[in-house]
Order: sequence, then structure tokens, then C-alpha cells
Amino acid sequence: MENKETSRLEAFSDGVFAVAITLLVLNIKPLSDNVLARGGLAFWQELGGQLPALLAFVTSFFTIGIMWINHHRLFNHIKRSDTGLMLFNLLLLLVIVFIPYPTALVAQQYDLNPAMHDAALLYSGTNVILAICFNLLWRYASYHNRLLGKDADTRAVAAISGQYLFGPLLYLIAFGLAFVSVAASIIFVLLLALFFALPPRLPAMIPHVWARIRSTFQAIEYQLLT
Amino acid sequence: MENKETSRLEAFSDGVFAVAITLLVLNIKPLSDNVLARGGLAFWQELGGQLPALLAFVTSFFTIGIMWINHHRLFNHIKRSDTGLMLFNLLLLLVIVFIPYPTALVAQQYDLNPAMHDAALLYSGTNVILAICFNLLWRYASYHNRLLGKDADTRAVAAISGQYLFGPLLYLIAFGLAFVSVAASIIFVLLLALFFALPPRLPAMIPHVWARIRSTFQAIEYQLLT
Amino acid sequence: MENKETSRLEAFSDGVFAVAITLLVLNIKPLSDNVLARGGLAFWQELGGQLPALLAFVTSFFTIGIMWINHHRLFNHIKRSDTGLMLFNLLLLLVIVFIPYPTALVAQQYDLNPAMHDAALLYSGTNVILAICFNLLWRYASYHNRLLGKDADTRAVAAISGQYLFGPLLYLIAFGLAFVSVAASIIFVLLLALFFALPPRLPAMIPHVWARIRSTFQAIEYQLLT
Amino acid sequence: MENKETSRLEAFSDGVFAVAITLLVLNIKPLSDNVLARGGLAFWQELGGQLPALLAFVTSFFTIGIMWINHHRLFNHIKRSDTGLMLFNLLLLLVIVFIPYPTALVAQQYDLNPAMHDAALLYSGTNVILAICFNLLWRYASYHNRLLGKDADTRAVAAISGQYLFGPLLYLIAFGLAFVSVAASIIFVLLLALFFALPPRLPAMIPHVWARIRSTFQAIEYQLLT
Repeated sequence: MENKETSRLEAFSDGVFAVAITLLVLNIKPLSDNVLARGGLAFWQELGGQLPALLAFVTSFFTIGIMWINHHRLFNHIKRSDTGLMLFNLLLLLVIVFIPYPTALVAQQYDLNPAMHDAALLYSGTNVILAICFNLLWRYASYHNRLLGKDADTRAVAAISGQYLFGPLLYLIAFGLAFVSVAASIIFVLLLALFFALPPRLPAMIPHVWARIRSTFQAIEYQLLT
Repeated sequence: MENKETSRLEAFSDGVFAVAITLLVLNIKPLSDNVLARGGLAFWQELGGQLPALLAFVTSFFTIGIMWINHHRLFNHIKRSDTGLMLFNLLLLLVIVFIPYPTALVAQQYDLNPAMHDAALLYSGTNVILAICFNLLWRYASYHNRLLGKDADTRAVAAISGQYLFGPLLYLIAFGLAFVSVAASIIFVLLLALFFALPPRLPAMIPHVWARIRSTFQAIEYQLLT
Repeated sequence: MENKETSRLEAFSDGVFAVAITLLVLNIKPLSDNVLARGGLAFWQELGGQLPALLAFVTSFFTIGIMWINHHRLFNHIKRSDTGLMLFNLLLLLVIVFIPYPTALVAQQYDLNPAMHDAALLYSGTNVILAICFNLLWRYASYHNRLLGKDADTRAVAAISGQYLFGPLLYLIAFGLAFVSVAASIIFVLLLALFFALPPRLPAMIPHVWARIRSTFQAIEYQLLT
Repeated sequence: MENKETSRLEAFSDGVFAVAITLLVLNIKPLSDNVLARGGLAFWQELGGQLPALLAFVTSFFTIGIMWINHHRLFNHIKRSDTGLMLFNLLLLLVIVFIPYPTALVAQQYDLNPAMHDAALLYSGTNVILAICFNLLWRYASYHNRLLGKDADTRAVAAISGQYLFGPLLYLIAFGLAFVSVAASIIFVLLLALFFALPPRLPAMIPHVWARIRSTFQAIEYQLLT
């Protein structure tokens, strides 16, 4: 029954992540009939005007996608569920579902007036709260291993705990950066998301993952040449 | 095959809960281009004007989320399915999917004219119907244990039946409160949702859950200090 | 691997049903700020004006919900999958996802001008196509039992085949009725949906299901009185 | 644990496909109150005016549905997961979720001015990128069989690899066709989608699948006549 519990929690969370990530496309506005009828340069210019919205779409998509990878990683270790875990998970999903809102504001404000920092503050501030929610969920579940599997990999668990410890602090730096430079803050947030998605034993992993990606391209090249 | 039946019923219900909870974010309106371009105080003031919508978002999110926890708890005991159960489950999902509508009306009316009670009556009335639907589903499944597992925990089943017996009556009190005070009615509904999400052996559980949450914070504190 | 195949087909279909059924709520329009501020009678009158939309919401909800029960029943017997089944399933889902569109038109047209039959023709016509799609899916899977489980209940399979044989014809009657009376056609379609959701050995089942529902109410009554 | 990993990846992907395919219906605009009240010819004319949107709906529905069949086919062989696979899968889903946008533009522009090729270029260009994403995912997983099951069917794997090798090139032809004829390009893209959904040992399969479909119709005919 324990397993069944986390599996429904994961299914529900997967659903929320899937809906949230797909709704993002609704933010890309269709082109006007006038421009579609004229076509040519006008078409590509109006499409170019959608660029901030498209970038916000891609950014939110990867942010939510990487948060899903994170969630997935935690639940590789969490094997039991209780009311507390469900409430903390709900809190986390609340922030995830909200993420597209500040992301859209950043894209819009940067397009209209790149000198203003308000939306970037809201965006990085939301990420600080998200990092805190991830910490709460993980600490609640991993404290004395109470909701982890009996066969939990102690080193992997400790590595996640260590990595997460600095999460809120790192996102606070992104929040501070938003006062100085909007672009630097956004890029820093994206790098952090990637950092938390990667397995915690990072330094050893990067060359390994990179080798896998490179060999994939070499295999394609090889097949194309022969 | 029996198990497969409830698992598809749960998967479908999880999907409905997940979509309903995520669609809520669409109620938060984007800021105007004018305000985004000006930024600064105007930005935060217009965002503050979104506060009732944000509160309705958070309230609906936790209401639906806690209803999911409830649903999940019932289906820890329900192990078989039949056409009647599917129809009662459909009725329950109908009310769940409708919940965001009166919630948004309450937030909007309270913002525009806090003296009016109409939306709060609609909101608490919807909750009375939801409580009745939960009762119907549970009574239908648990009557003579017909759809419960053979190994059903008799005490837990009796505890849920007892707790649910008072559900509609308690929500009727919230409905009555809405004539007197909108705020009191809403807060009472939220407390009820939380009460039904918690395991029925409540008095013994609260200190336990609280101890778990507190120990989580102590663990974080400890790690931060060392 | 066979089992895994239908389970992903079912999961994908469950997702489509869940999203389609939940999107329906977007058709209910929020009340105007003016009416919310005035409250009282104006509030309930404007809400009453939403009645056709609310009825369309409830009708579409139960139509799609009952179609899900149907789909679920077929896949209790279908155990294997191939490309043909996936394409017929896709065709079925296409019509399911489209259902809310003619339903909304019926509600709107009936409200504006109950003498017009156009939307009801479109609605019952869509249901004819849906019945044909259900038939195609089932015939394709059940022909010589090719995609059914080895332990398929021959009587249940024959009962479904027999019941489905008359589906398109019955819906054609609903289509004909739409020329005479919009209300009669809609009610007939709803009764048909219910008829196809119920197990095919209908006459023997109705008193059984009814007894179950009645005993549920008696149990509640008993608990309330003691 | 390995199996659990791909199962959550598949569940999340199924969710994204299901939401994306269902959101398509939101592009079909409701008829105006005026036309609904008048009914008759005006009703069917305005509905006819929705034809390009309806065709775009059907096209996008089958495109995304067939991409789901493709995804499903790959994950019949992929049995393990790692961070790289999750990121490539995310990239693929990003393009899937975006597909309805250029599809709607093609339908709209073709309706307004069939002489313009811009939207068709965007549409076929998006399909080139989609083909590349499918290739990356598959090459990454199948290189030296690293994420495939130990019992992977070597011939089936080689057949997919061979079929996918020409994917981007074939879609580039569709892209080139868009400069010459919008209609030819769209039809070619649809045929390609179907080609990739079918099992790779195509020539041997078509008569087989066709025989299955024909026998289904014969069985219906037989039952109707007796």
C-alpha cells in the first residue's frame, strides 16, 4: 500500500507539471489577419515581435521541465507518503503552477523597458520561494530517513541534502543580481535550475554526460557518411 | 482485473484534479503594458490590485488539493469498482471542477463590495453539495464493505464514516455563517477542508504531525549552523 | 510488453478525457463587476442567465464522463495493441474532444431562439459519428478476438457487440428527432449515453444497481437516526 | 528502479501529449449570437467559414496523435533513463507543444491569401526541427544499446534507426515544397507523419493492416445482414 501511495502522489504531480508546461503555449499570440493576408516581410517582422513571448515560453518550459526532473529525482528515494508530505508537495506544486506568471512579466517588461527591474525581482523572488519549498519537501521526507526506502542510497541522499542546503542562498544571489542586471539574474536562475537537475555528484558527471552526447553525434555522422 | 479497474478510475480522477488545479492560474490577469513600461511603484501597486485574485488562486488551489488528498484516502480502502461507483465519482468530479467558479466570484465581490453576501452563499452552498457527494461516494462503496478490500482496516473505515457523517451539517453551518460574515464563512470552510484531509483519528495525530514538521525545521537549522 | 502497450494507450486516453472534461468549465462566464458590486437580486438574476451554459456544462460533463466509462469497459477486454487500434482510438478521441463545441451551440441557440433546430442537428449528428467510431474501435479489436485477452469472457464480448450494433441506428433516430423537437432529441441522446454505459445485460442489472443505491441511502438514514 | 524511471517519464510525456492535443479545440471559435438566433442557412454558412480552423484542428490532432504513437514505439525499446534522456525528451516535447501554433497560422493564411507561403514555411520548418529532435532522442538512447532493454529486438531497433536517418532529409523536401505549393507541402508532411507512425517494415505491413481493417468492415456487414 505504501508504494501505491507515492505512485498516486507522483501521478497527480506529473499531471500538474504536464498541464502547467503545456498551458505555456497559450501565451504566444496569433498573428493578425491583416499581416497574414499581406504575408512576406510583414509576416516575419510580426513573428519577430513575438520573440520575447517565445523566449519566455522556452524559458518557462525548461524551468518547469527541470523542476519535474528534480521532483522525479527526489521521489526515486521517497518511498512512503503521509499527510505532511502531501501538503508540502501541494505547496511546491502551487509555486510551480505560478512560475509562468512572473516569467511572462519579465519577458514583457524587458521588451517594453529594459531599464526596469521589477518583474525580474518578482521572478527571482518566486524562485527563492520555490527553492525553499523543495528544501521543505526533501527535509520532511529525508529526516531520519522516515519516508525513504529501506534500501536508500545513503551517499545519494546525503549528496542531495548537501546540494539543496545552498539552494535558497544561491537563489537569493539571483535576487540580488536582479537589482543590478535583469539579464544576469535570469541567466543565473537558468544555470541554477540546470545545476539542481543534474545528479549531485556533478564534477564527475559532466564529462560523462558530455561524452554520451558527443558519441551520439559521432554515430549519426558515421551513419550519414557510410 | 478488479485492481486494474480502480487504478484507471484513480488515474482519470487524478487527471481531472490536476487539470482543474492548474487551470486556476489562468484567472490571474497579466499587468498592463503601460504599467510594465513605467515600472517601479506603479508595478507593485497594480500587482497589489491582483491580491484578491491571488488569494482566490491560493484558496482554490488548496481546496482542490485537499479534496484530492481526501479522494486518495478513500481509495486507499476502496479496491473494487462498478458502474454505480463510477457515476458517483463523476458527480463528485463535476462539483470539484466547478469549485473555482464560485471561489473567483467570492474574491471579486469581496473586493468590489465587502458588504454583499451573495457569492459567499454560492461558495458555501457549493461546499455543502461537495460534502454530500463525498458522503454518497463513500457510503455507496463502504456499505457492507462491498467495494472495500478484504483486508480493510475496520477501525479506519468506521472512523471515516463517522467523520463524514457530520460533513454536510458542518458545511451547512458555514452556509449559515455566510449570512452573518463573509470572512468567517470562508475561513470556516478552509478549516473544514483541512479537518477532512487529516486522518480521522485527529486528536492523536496533530501533535505527531506537528512534531514531524518541527523536527524538519530543527534539522535544517542544525545543518545551517554546522 | 503487450500489457504495457494497452496501459500507455489507456493512460494517454485517460489524459485526453480528463482534460476535455475539465476544459468545459471555461465556458461558464464570470459575472460582470457591476452586478457583483450591486449584489442581491441582480446577482442571482445574472447567474440565472447563465443557466443554459450551466446545463451545457453538466450535459457535456456527463456525456464525456459516460464515454470514458464506455472506453474503460472496452479496455477491460482489449489486452493487446497495434497501430490500427491506436489510429481508431485517436479517431474516437478526436470526436470526444470535439463534443463540447456542438453542446455549447445547442445551449446557446436554444436560449436565443428555441424554434431553431440547426445546433441540435449538429449535436446529434456528432453523436452518430461518435457511435460509429466506438463501433469501429470495438469491431477492429474484437474481430476473431484478435486483440482481446485469452481469458476474454465470451458472453460479455458478444453482449457488447450486440449492444453496439444498434448504436449508430439509435443515434440516427436522435438525429431525426432533432428535426421535430430539440428537447426530445437531446434527452434521447442523454438516455442513450447512459444505456451504453450500463453493462449490456441491462434488464437484469437495473434492479440490482437500484437496490445498491437505495440501500446506501437507507444506511445513511439509519446512521442519522441512531 | 530502472523501470520505474521510464514509466514516470512516459506518464509525464503522455500528460503533455494529452493536454496539447485537447487544447487544440480552443482554436475553434463559437458562432455569433446573431447567427445562432437567425439559424437556418446563416448557421451553416458561418460554420462553413470555420472550415479552415476545423481542418487545422483535425490536422494538428492527427499530427500530435501520430507523434504520440512514435514516442510510444521508441519507448517500447527504451527501458532505462538518465538525465540526458530526460533533457532530450523535454526538447522533443517543447516542439510538440509548439506545433499547434504554426498549424493554426497555415490554416488562417491559406484562408486569407492562398498565394502566400510564409506560414507553410514556418510549419514545415518546425517539422524539420521535430524530426531532428526525434533523431537525437533515439540516437542518444540506442547508441551501443545503452538505454535499451537487454532483450531489445536488434532488427526492430536497426529498422527504426534506418527509418529515422532519412527523417530530417524528407522533411527538408517538404520545406522546399512549401516554396512551390503550400497544399503539396502540407499533404507531404501528413504522409510523412503516417509513414513514421507505421512499423518500419512497411512494405510487408500495409497489406496486413489493410486486411485487418477490411475484415472488420466485412464482419460488421455480415452482422447487419443476418
